[in-house]
Amino acid sequence: MAETQKSQPQKPKEVLKDVVLVGKKPLMSYVMAALMQLTQSDSITIKARGRAISRAVDVAQILTNRFLGDSSIKSIKIDTETIGDPPRNVSIIEIVVSGKPLKK
Amino acid sequence: MAETQKSQPQKPKEVLKDVVLVGKKPLMSYVMAALMQLTQSDSITIKARGRAISRAVDVAQILTNRFLGDSSIKSIKIDTETIGDPPRNVSIIEIVVSGKPLKK
Repeated sequence: MAETQKSQPQKPKEVLKDVVLVGKKPLMSYVMAALMQLTQSDSITIKARGRAISRAVDVAQILTNRFLGDSSIKSIKIDTETIGDPPRNVSIIEIVVSGKPLKK
Repeated sequence: MAETQKSQPQKPKEVLKDVVLVGKKPLMSYVMAALMQLTQSDSITIKARGRAISRAVDVAQILTNRFLGDSSIKSIKIDTETIGDPPRNVSIIEIVVSGKPLKK
């Protein structure tokens, strides 16, 4: 396909579709990222590792309580990943949230 | 049964049965508390609020991966509570874990 290489990609950071990876940025930036993805998709997955897990739960709660209509937490999964060198175990969480952004 | 009302309760801190409330203590103290309760019960609930949520997930993962046979994460629930004055919202998590402590 003939893509215009010079134009900036609109979403340079969108690595995975319908996934919001929660890290150390302010809470609301993840809430907004999730809302944007939910305009195009019925559900998204909020993922986080280690200390960011509590923030991921905050993001899911803020989304469902304040910004989404007809929303629900579809599933919550926790697991362990081995990362880094030296390898160490770190917990991960995946929260699947569905709903439609409320019109403000 | 004839209970002696005046005798001190043996476990003064056990407010809720089969519940491990995760806070700021070292991770393994919660793992051990959970293991002790699991010798008497089929399943326990690991609860945490706010920042401690990621630690609660760690506790559940360490339990199921290292210390329990036949273990499973029965359910994971997240919710929001309003605490403090001035009131503020804080996320909570409840992880129900079942399994039998492995004999070492």
